[in-house]
Amino acid sequence: MIEVYAFSTPNSIRVPIALEELGLAYKLKPVNVRKGEQKLPDYLAINPNGKVPLMVDSEGFDGSPITISESGAILVYLAEKTGKLLPREGVGRVRVFEQMFFHLTSVGPAFGQLGFFKRQAAEQIPLAIARFQSESERVLAVLEGLLGERQFVTGDVFTIADIVHFGWLWRREFAGIDFENSPNIARWYGQIDARPAVKRALQRVAALVPAA
Amino acid sequence: MIEVYAFSTPNSIRVPIALEELGLAYKLKPVNVRKGEQKLPDYLAINPNGKVPLMVDSEGFDGSPITISESGAILVYLAEKTGKLLPREGVGRVRVFEQMFFHLTSVGPAFGQLGFFKRQAAEQIPLAIARFQSESERVLAVLEGLLGERQFVTGDVFTIADIVHFGWLWRREFAGIDFENSPNIARWYGQIDARPAVKRALQRVAALVPAA
Repeated sequence: MIEVYAFSTPNSIRVPIALEELGLAYKLKPVNVRKGEQKLPDYLAINPNGKVPLMVDSEGFDGSPITISESGAILVYLAEKTGKLLPREGVGRVRVFEQMFFHLTSVGPAFGQLGFFKRQAAEQIPLAIARFQSESERVLAVLEGLLGERQFVTGDVFTIADIVHFGWLWRREFAGIDFENSPNIARWYGQIDARPAVKRALQRVAALVPAA
Repeated sequence: MIEVYAFSTPNSIRVPIALEELGLAYKLKPVNVRKGEQKLPDYLAINPNGKVPLMVDSEGFDGSPITISESGAILVYLAEKTGKLLPREGVGRVRVFEQMFFHLTSVGPAFGQLGFFKRQAAEQIPLAIARFQSESERVLAVLEGLLGERQFVTGDVFTIADIVHFGWLWRREFAGIDFENSPNIARWYGQIDARPAVKRALQRVAALVPAA
């Protein structure tokens, strides 16, 4: 049995997408980050970093369960366990790690900080907004260039690197970002969003949010 | 031949450390980020993301050279190529990826933004400094807890996850962070810093900085 602690967040969505793509059964355990549930003692006991997603695979290694934090690490684990969505060797494999790290160290932090300073900060700080707006547009332009040459972010095949990028691009409204000047990203996004597995994951994660 | 485009930065240092630990010969190519050389057209042509480090391995796959950006991706490549510094399977392997992603998405961005807003921003913005100071202290406390239970960040063996963490902890002064309340991190840091391979890498990277 695979259990995923998650909410409707850019980082959480990656894990259900990967599980749906891989055809693995899983149970979602809601952690309402809007209420700060990821910082409660019971949750910190299983993830001291206080973040979602977190995955527990009861059939980890040698019959022992394993608990894994960090969406990137969970995706690598699932891909290596199944032998899918990540080339076993060669240039394709290198490109998957390159794109995962590019997103997680550049796109994710830029979008996340931009959304915070635009929407959630106690005061509007032009210098901070300009800094993260400019960085978000820069990384988007890098990705736009890449997708002008490739169907998926690493080449001709859909991989966990596409799943990683999808998270924040799906939640781009939080950062006030759109695809108006990014036709290649818009094309790629539409293609990912149309995948049946992605649709199922989005539906299941949306159902975690309590009705207002 | 392995060539590494690098400077004396938290991200760059990881690659020479890994290469020294693995006993691989390499040539450093300085990219002076203080002068913005990573944004010059010639460099953007080989790394559109405009960052160091970047590695070119003339003996990549099937006799073709490969160019790799993102320090995390470079470390995974080197570890898998040599079969060292990253367990081939099992829980230990999962923990390495978990720690790499934890550092690169949490510690790195927090320290980087804190240093910027403390030292480089056009004005002092208390809200931004407080945000990244608090986040830096939080992630440091997570790492401190972890290193209270383990010799290295993933267990009993030194891996590329230790090398990833070392980068920003080596450059903690930029963010105004110290180890006064982090005895476990201080113990771990001293142990890494004392490794002969790490000393050699630090010396070679220091030599990239022109005399003032």
